[in-house]
Order: sequence, then C-alpha cells, then structure tokens
Amino acid sequence: MISKIRYGNPVPTGAVVNGTADENGKGQLRYFEKTEQGFRYRMEKKDAVYGLGEANRGINKRGYQYISYCTDDPNHTEEKLSLYGAHNFIVIDGACTFGVFIDNPGRVTFDIGYERTDELNIIPEYEDLDFYIIEGEGIKDIVRQFRILIGQSYIPPRWAFGYQQCRWSYMDADAVREVVDGYENCGIPLTAVYLDIDYMESYKDFTISDERFPDFGNFVKEMKAKNIHLVPIIDAGVKIEDGYDVYEEGTAKGYFVKDREGKDYVTAVWPGLTHFPDFLNTEARRWFGLKYQALTDKGIDGFWNDMNEPAIFYTERGIDEVREFLKAEAGTGDISTDQLMELKWKLNELANNDTDYKAMYHNMDGQTVNHDRVHNLYGYNMTKAAAEGLAELRPGERTLLFSRSSYIGMHRYGGIWMGDNQAWWSHILLNLKMLPSLNMCGFLYTGADIGGFGSNTTRELLLRWLALGVFTPLMRNHAALGTRLQECFRFEHTEDFKSVISCRYRLLPYLYSEYLKSVYENEMMFRPLAFDYREDEIAVNVEDQLMLGNEVMIAPVYTQNATGRYVYLPENMTMIIMHENGEEEKELEKGIHFVEMPLNRVVFFVKADAKIPVVGTDYGRSICNGTMEDIAVSRISWLGKQDKGYRMYMDTGHSDNKKDDVLITEF
Amino acid sequence: MISKIRYGNPVPTGAVVNGTADENGKGQLRYFEKTEQGFRYRMEKKDAVYGLGEANRGINKRGYQYISYCTDDPNHTEEKLSLYGAHNFIVIDGACTFGVFIDNPGRVTFDIGYERTDELNIIPEYEDLDFYIIEGEGIKDIVRQFRILIGQSYIPPRWAFGYQQCRWSYMDADAVREVVDGYENCGIPLTAVYLDIDYMESYKDFTISDERFPDFGNFVKEMKAKNIHLVPIIDAGVKIEDGYDVYEEGTAKGYFVKDREGKDYVTAVWPGLTHFPDFLNTEARRWFGLKYQALTDKGIDGFWNDMNEPAIFYTERGIDEVREFLKAEAGTGDISTDQLMELKWKLNELANNDTDYKAMYHNMDGQTVNHDRVHNLYGYNMTKAAAEGLAELRPGERTLLFSRSSYIGMHRYGGIWMGDNQAWWSHILLNLKMLPSLNMCGFLYTGADIGGFGSNTTRELLLRWLALGVFTPLMRNHAALGTRLQECFRFEHTEDFKSVISCRYRLLPYLYSEYLKSVYENEMMFRPLAFDYREDEIAVNVEDQLMLGNEVMIAPVYTQNATGRYVYLPENMTMIIMHENGEEEKELEKGIHFVEMPLNRVVFFVKADAKIPVVGTDYGRSICNGTMEDIAVSRISWLGKQDKGYRMYMDTGHSDNKKDDVLITEF
Repeated sequence: MISKIRYGNPVPTGAVVNGTADENGKGQLRYFEKTEQGFRYRMEKKDAVYGLGEANRGINKRGYQYISYCTDDPNHTEEKLSLYGAHNFIVIDGACTFGVFIDNPGRVTFDIGYERTDELNIIPEYEDLDFYIIEGEGIKDIVRQFRILIGQSYIPPRWAFGYQQCRWSYMDADAVREVVDGYENCGIPLTAVYLDIDYMESYKDFTISDERFPDFGNFVKEMKAKNIHLVPIIDAGVKIEDGYDVYEEGTAKGYFVKDREGKDYVTAVWPGLTHFPDFLNTEARRWFGLKYQALTDKGIDGFWNDMNEPAIFYTERGIDEVREFLKAEAGTGDISTDQLMELKWKLNELANNDTDYKAMYHNMDGQTVNHDRVHNLYGYNMTKAAAEGLAELRPGERTLLFSRSSYIGMHRYGGIWMGDNQAWWSHILLNLKMLPSLNMCGFLYTGADIGGFGSNTTRELLLRWLALGVFTPLMRNHAALGTRLQECFRFEHTEDFKSVISCRYRLLPYLYSEYLKSVYENEMMFRPLAFDYREDEIAVNVEDQLMLGNEVMIAPVYTQNATGRYVYLPENMTMIIMHENGEEEKELEKGIHFVEMPLNRVVFFVKADAKIPVVGTDYGRSICNGTMEDIAVSRISWLGKQDKGYRMYMDTGHSDNKKDDVLITEF
Repeated sequence: MISKIRYGNPVPTGAVVNGTADENGKGQLRYFEKTEQGFRYRMEKKDAVYGLGEANRGINKRGYQYISYCTDDPNHTEEKLSLYGAHNFIVIDGACTFGVFIDNPGRVTFDIGYERTDELNIIPEYEDLDFYIIEGEGIKDIVRQFRILIGQSYIPPRWAFGYQQCRWSYMDADAVREVVDGYENCGIPLTAVYLDIDYMESYKDFTISDERFPDFGNFVKEMKAKNIHLVPIIDAGVKIEDGYDVYEEGTAKGYFVKDREGKDYVTAVWPGLTHFPDFLNTEARRWFGLKYQALTDKGIDGFWNDMNEPAIFYTERGIDEVREFLKAEAGTGDISTDQLMELKWKLNELANNDTDYKAMYHNMDGQTVNHDRVHNLYGYNMTKAAAEGLAELRPGERTLLFSRSSYIGMHRYGGIWMGDNQAWWSHILLNLKMLPSLNMCGFLYTGADIGGFGSNTTRELLLRWLALGVFTPLMRNHAALGTRLQECFRFEHTEDFKSVISCRYRLLPYLYSEYLKSVYENEMMFRPLAFDYREDEIAVNVEDQLMLGNEVMIAPVYTQNATGRYVYLPENMTMIIMHENGEEEKELEKGIHFVEMPLNRVVFFVKADAKIPVVGTDYGRSICNGTMEDIAVSRISWLGKQDKGYRMYMDTGHSDNKKDDVLITEF
C-alpha cells in the first residue's frame, strides 16, 4: 500500500506515473514525526536503511548522512555527501519495514544515524514535496510497488550489453581505429567505442570536427561493418557563438535558462561561455531532442549525456566578482599576500557555486521557477529530451542513451553511468554497492567506469574490475585525459583480458534475460543478500556480495594482490570458475569459504537448485550484435543443477519494446 | 649478511650507525641489474614485497609505485605516491628472500610491478647513494639485522602509552579544562592533551600566548596534578619578526636555510613569512634543540614536531611570479577569463612546489648542499635537534617526542604519527597496514590520528578505530579545525567508549613489555601474518590482521554497520572479548571464522599455547602514570593458556633507558 502526503506546493517532477497512491492525509506519516526541519524516524538498534540510488558508502546506508543534490565531483572519497544523481527512495528494514520516497527536486538531506545514531532525519531545503510511504510484504514487495509507481525502466539495444571502450578522448578517427584494431588483434570482442568531447568542433553540441573526423558518416559505416557502434557525448551547455545554429535558435526562441532579469544565463563549461537549454520547458526539450538528428543522420545509434548536473566551471557573476576584487585590491599590481590567498579561495569557489544555481531561472511551461528548487531535474530532463527526440528520429528502434546526472523518473528514458570515478580499489566495491540501490530506484542500465576514470590504473585493478563488470548491464572501460592508457591491449598478457571479457558474451543470454525480467516484472536485477536472506545474521550484513537474478551470487575481488577472498554462502551453491572456453564447477556448502579467484577467471556462484544458460563466446557475441528474434536452444548449455527450471526472456534486441513482444521460454 | 655498494658521493644521513656492512663492491648487486635509471629486479610470480615504512596501500607493496619524498598531503587517497615519511627499506620474499635499503635522502621511486607486473625498479633521482643488500634466515632475521644496522629505537615515557586527546586547536586553557573534565566525568582515563598551533603567540615557536594560556607554568602543574601531560606542537618554520629572539638569533648566527645567493630563505607557513632553521647544520641543530627549554622550564615533558617535510604554503618567488603575472596581464583590471584560470592554477601551485625545494640550500657543517638532494633528512634532523636538546635539558629523563616527517635514522630520536589522515573507514585499515612496515624501519612509537584528522567522524567510526588504537603505542584521538568535535564524551553512551579505552590500560603491562622487547631485541612489535606463517597460503595474503608480539593476533573491524568480521586463524587460538571489567574467552580452531565484534568490546586472539598479562583498569592506569620500578605480580592475571611462559620486560618508565636497566621476569 502506498500513501502520499503533500506538503506545500510541489513542482511536478514526473517521477511518479502510476498514481495509485492513497491520499489519506497526514495520518499516514505515522512512522515519522514532523520536526521543524523535516521528518524524523526513531530507529531501533537493528534497523537497516537501504536505497538512495547513486550514493556513497554502504549498502546499508545507516551511520552517515547524504545530500541529494546532483554534483559534479569526481573524487568520491568516503566523506562526500553528494554524487551525480539524486534518488530519494529508501527502505527501512527492522522493527518496522517500509519505504519512503521524497518527491522533491531541491536539496534533501538524509541524516541516517549520523548526528544521533538512533535517528533518521529527512530534511528538505524546500518543504514543497510529496511524501510517499510504501508498505508491503517485505522489502522486495515494497521495492516492486515503488517501481510500478515510477514506471517501466529503459531498455537499451542489445549491442549495448557488449564490452565497450571509452577515453577522454580518442582525438581523431585514427585513434578510434587504433583501439578497434588493438582489441581485434588480441581477440577481445568489443561492441562500442565512445567519442568524448573532442570529436566536436570547439565543443559545440551536434557538431563534428571535420579536421579530426572527416567524412564522419562513412567512418560510422566503416565501424558498423566491424560491429562497432560509435557513441558520441552530448553536453548540457550550448556554446555562445554567432553563426552556431543551436545557439542562435535557442536564443531566438527563448529556450535557454534565464537570469533574474530574464536574460539568457551565461555560464562557462568546456566550450567557454555557454547557455543552458531549459530542459524543464516542454518546447525547449523537444527542440533540443530533435537536434540529435545531426548525428543519427550519420548513422549514430547511441549517446551519453554529460555535464548535466549541470556542472559549471564559472559564471560571469563569479568572474566579475574576481575582477572587481582585483580592481579594488590590485589595481597597481601591489596586491598583498593575504589578498592573493583570498583570491585563490575565490577562484577555487567559482565552480559549481550555489550562488549561481540560485540565480538561474526556468520557464516550466509558463511558470518561472528558480533553478535551486528544481536542480535535480535538470539532467533528468536533458535525457528525457533526448529520449523523446530519438523516439521521433529513430521510430521503432531503440537507441543507447545514458546520463551522468539523474533523478527518479529518468530511469524510464535512459540509463546512467556511476559518474566520474577513480582508479581506486575501493571504487570496485562502491560500484558493487550502487547496483542494488540504483535498481531500487528503477535504474537498471548502469555500470561504473571500469578501471577507473581518474588516476592511473594498474593491470591487476583493471582485470579485477572487469570481472565485476562482466555482470553489470553497462560494461565500459573509461579513463580520463592525462591518465595511463587503459585499453586492455596496452597491458602484458592480453589473453587474461580476453579470458575475462569473453565471459560477458558467454553469459549474455542470461544477463539479457535477467535484465528484461527486471524491467518487465519490476524486479531488482541485483539485490543485497539481506533482501533474500533476511533471517540469516551473517547474510544481512554482507556488503561485498550481491544476488543477481534468482539464480546467481557474485563476489568480486576488490583488493590488490589477492589470490582469492572470503565468500559467504547463505545456502549451498555451485561455484563456477569461468574462462573463455569453458568453466570448472565445484559444489560448496552453506557457510564461509576462502575461495581462490585467479586473475584471468570470472568466479561466481549458482544456487544449488538453479541453472543458468551459457553459450560459447562467439555465439554470445552474435546474440549481442544480432537482430535475431530468438536464440537457438541447441546452442545453449546450462550451468548449475538441472532440477529447477529457468524462464528465459528474449526479444528482438533492437526494436521498440513492449512486454507482449517478449518471448518467454521455460527450460 | 649485509653488503653495501656505494654509488657516487652520498651525503651522510646518519641512518646507519652500526656499520658492519661488507663492502665487497658491485658483485653484491647480484639480485639486481643496473639500468640507466636505477636498479631492476625481475620478480617471480609469487614474490611479495614488504616495507617502505609510512607508505600508502597494501602490506604487500607489489602492484603499485611509491615515491620517497616527504610530502604534506593529508588526502591519502589510493593513488597518492608520497606521504609524510621516506623509508627506503624493503624485503622481497619469494623465489629469493632479501632486504634492500637505499640510503639516499633525495627522491627515490619504487616501481613495484606497476609499469610491468614482473619488474621491481628502484629509481633514485640523484645517484649518490649507499645500496645495502641484507640476507639472512628468512624475513624476520633480515629485518632484525637491518634494525641492528640502524640502531636502537626510541623509547617514550610510560605515560605516553596512555590514551591521549588532541584537536587543532584547544584555543585556551579553559578549552583544555573542558576536555579533561569531559573525560573525567565519564570515567575515561586520559594521560595527555595536546596543544596545537594556537597555543603560541602568533605561531611563534617557543612562545606561549599569554592571553589564551595565562600563567602557563601553573596551568601545566594544575594538569599534572590530574595526571594530564600537556604536549605542545613545535613547527619547523621560524616567524620573521623583529624582536623575536629565535628569529633574531638565527639570523645573526646564520642558522637558517639559505637561497641561491646565500640569503636567508623566505617561505610562508602558519606564522606568515618564516625562515627554516638549517637542521642539517650541527650548530644550528644544537641551538634549536636547546630552545625547547622555554617549555621544559614550564614543566612540559612532551612535544610533537610538525610541518617539517618541510611544508610550504608559498614562497616569495611564487608570490612574486603571481604578482608579475598580474602586473603584466591585469594592470588595468581587465584580466581575461583565460588569464584568471591560469592565475588559479598558479595560486594552487604555490604550496609545496618543487621549484622552491630546489632553491633552498643547507650548510652541512661547511658543505653547501641543495635541499632537494637531502629533502628527506629535514624533519628527521629537526627531531634529532629536539631529542639532543631535550637530553641536555632533562638529563636522565625521557621526553615524549614524535614527528610528522621522518627518514630512517630518526627512529632513534622519536616516534612518528602517521600524518594528517581522514575520518575514513579505509584509514583504519591503512593505519593497521603501516604498523609492520614502520616497525621494519625502526619506528615503534607510532599510531594514527584516531577518529580521523580531516572530515567529520562518526560515533561508530571512532569506536572501531579506538579498538585498533588500544594496541598502537601512540593512542591519540585527533581532529582538525572545522570538523565535528570528536572527543569521546561528545557522543551518546559514553560507557561504550569507556569500555573500549579501559582495555588499553588493562593491557598496558603487556603492550609496554612488548614495546621494550621490540626495542631491545630489534623485533617487530607488529608483523604481517606472512612473516610468521610463510607456508600458509591464506595467511600470507591476509592484509587486515596483524601479529602482535609472539602471543597475540589483532583483527579490527574497519567497515560501517558491521556486527563482526571474518578472521583467519593460522593456528588454534583463544578469542578474547574484553571490556573494562573483564573478558570472555572462547577457543577457536585454525581456519576461517566469522567473529562477532560488539562496538563496545575489544576483540583479539591469543595463541593456544601462549598467555599474556592483564590487569584491572585502575591498576593499569597507575602503571601507566606511575614511576614504579616493578609491577606487583599479585595483581596480574593471565589471559590464554598457561602452558607457555611469558617473559615480561619492565623498567622505570621515565628514566633514560639502557638494556641493562630492564627487569626481565619469566612467568
């Protein structure tokens, strides 16, 4: 049962689409008490708190605080409060079990036992919100009800389940060819190469640098012939430049975010001075969405939307303040050291400054709304714009689409990657921990920058991360400018990488089937052990293993120089030690095991009574790339025991999806 | 056997004091080959590499690179290459087992399987060095030989084994009283409160702010009467201020570090513009060391030396460059945005800039030496200055002394804390991992800032960190300006903190005895399991447990919301679940266990055939504070089995130490 209590006059977010919520009024707040600042729940000692989507720290979120405010901060150290997404759904499980969704796109703080260990305090900056309480038959049912409330998750084309490579940036077509050849030469199947900001002309959205990517349409074809999809980035900011059509049209039509006086707001990001399209405006959204045609016309069928928190390097206001300070203090150049230190502080505060967010205004179809109140809707609506545009531009066809910033609701339009991370071992584990919390919020197509975006990776770190990435719907290796080259073929003994990545293709029928099942049945593809083994005192606290579907448990290595790791089996399972050409199986009993995990193997666990489909690497690759409506039963093998059936979900892999089109086969 | 090969003309570092090394020449390099850049060892697949003292990442250092260059960087994320200390001793264990010490105080890079997984490359920036190879009967013997080579480790007074509290800063005497009362009121025994930089007058070394700490001598007495030692900080930089005696004397006598032209080098740190004393000069060292008298005269018997990498906020050179840039680019105030971004970069590069280190010169008793070549000796010699001064000022008495920056050799003069860390769970584990590597290099009196220096701690994080801190010789809670107050009494249910911290006092006879044993027998107080159980394939890879002495194994919790953790027992042991008034014991068999670890208990393991002394909390406190020459046997209880004896080392706890003065009792 879902109850909704409305406070104030909330902006419609579009998060909820199936409004079955009971609006019985304040009586339904009963778990919480209203405080001056927000809402308080008294936690019992054993209460755990799950959720918050793309958030820092544990699977159990208790013991810290979190702020929902989409933020461009690539340095996810443990104390960070905000990441790229804002996903205000939690489930409290313990003395009472229920879900809470705060539908409010402004800043919302979740203090989950930080200030006081026994209090959960939810503190919205603006108290215009819908407060949902979801009750049900346990956690999984509560999540399912919430997922129905917010609508069906996005499904990408099947090729987007292949292994993909990105770097900021492959500077020209030859650099892309080098990557494709590098992978081909060592026999590692690749389905996509990403184009980061440098493919554009001066970072202008919907342009292509003729110098670096001449004859782009033919280059796209050349790559398609090798089953490689090119996936260009689209940034939120539109460059201010006379003669640039997107800028000129947007200005003429009033489609950009405004300042206090109603002028187009000026910020700076990669292209230098830019305007932000007003994605909260229906007309502006349609206008921007159809701009993707510049690339779909060239054969592009996948995009990633970036910088849409929106990230801001600086604004005119900030720069003007610095200039004024310099004029006043340093006209003669005789600036004091103290003044220089103040200047340093001012310069470092230019980026992503609250003052700037509070000075931006949206035209929400007639209503003027301050950006700060709806901050978390921005990236969401950029991706909605793209999804709706692409549905018009490529009718009947799926397009790969994912975003850096997001809010619940955006899960219907695209996936997300887990933001700019680092080549840290701890970020493998953070990757794992975000999977179930994102699934709770409807985000199923997701994954982290494998190998780490910032910092220099190592061969071992990349291999271990790939062994987790094999299971994540988005499996993309991505690294930043200035870091060590981290395409797999840059390292010694590429056969180890081939062995690990091939397992992705071998498991593709299973992973794709489980993905479809999660979408259509409103299930979580990845779950904490606590959701399935609530009475098992060890299982409920496991923070480094996940259940995948109803058959599998994963437990990746996330430490340097490890030969293996401890794994807790909440029931008897078969350990699978997989490589490109086969696998070993070993029965293990419920309990704690130290399991060896060679660097060139993918190790996972299948429940004793379950089975999962597995195919050969090449056939898996053809399923990934192909348009086949079915898969050949004769070419499927099975891992695990045979006594329990498996329901396989399969579809065309590329066409617009409806539940009715899914072929469900019982094995 | 120790062999030494000399390259070039190395500066004497004083690291080695017992020069028994065989100088047979280049033949002894046989494990390594000389490369253009340095020295290369081909690692076998199973080779592990231990050591590097205060360094980042694993106990086994393989798989990454490290740069020995003392650096003030409080943000120890996984990719950081340099921390506060520079400790060039490693042991390779595998196909061959041997130790290597690179006695070179400039920048030295250790690439341990980073660039290529099978190569260890040691790359000194300046190839004037002594290259030692140490061979022996296994790792422990190699470490013992190295420890003999570098001389006996520092022993602090016994009160320094009590629980201590620090904050940047307790702003006045009343703030200190509040802390002492806070602990007293909740019955948590405390032995020291630290005074961070704000106790000084304008951050001037050897001054005391009369306003904030009036009648300081009596305040010291007031605290001593409560068994509280005040421990003031001393920074490396000396404020440039007319009338300030330290500045004026130093200038007059030429005791400061010079610039290229031989003028006193000007940098800025906390006091604003400063000079750095030339600690590499014997006379300057003695002069500075005797300055501690300003505080010992007031009854102070403990110090911590800080900012001695040396940290630099900016120099005149850097500031002048920025001013020149501003004058040239922005005379009129019409500076462009690009210029502002360049300015931001320039301002952010002011601190700890290589150009400045390369522009500083030492007078090493007549020889002019560029700072960059001897950078890692600076903090070491500041602490040597203090130790030698304090030995004159407080004859026959030990003084608590530890440093932020260090080099091997400094272990004879004082301890170190593990530098400015963060309130991150991962830093509990980093704390644990540094213990054995520091012990290898002679640093025995050490510990981390418990609860975390930067970032906001949580109650749970602090309790878990304390449960490790109970075992570290330096047990100090320390937090930075602007962070959440983290004295234990600030949190709910202080009885839990009392329970954990009391265990420190209950174990004091054991910990102090093991400390003395480690000093006099050149043993490691903390060892990786790999050192003791080399043939046990699980044990050799354990990175989150340590052996303590010959009796105990520790395995702290370092994750949020954990009810316990996996522990690997390499042999049968007794699990001790300790609290302030007693303990439970439980026999556990060799193997893997999930062990419950309540937040308010200290859980550890005693070998099945061993026993350790334990006392009551109050008695432990009196041993800590007291000057007794012995401890009353009747008041000792024993944990663990009785069949193996225990050799207890005990001494006066305060007087100058010689091995002959130690009372060894066989139980």
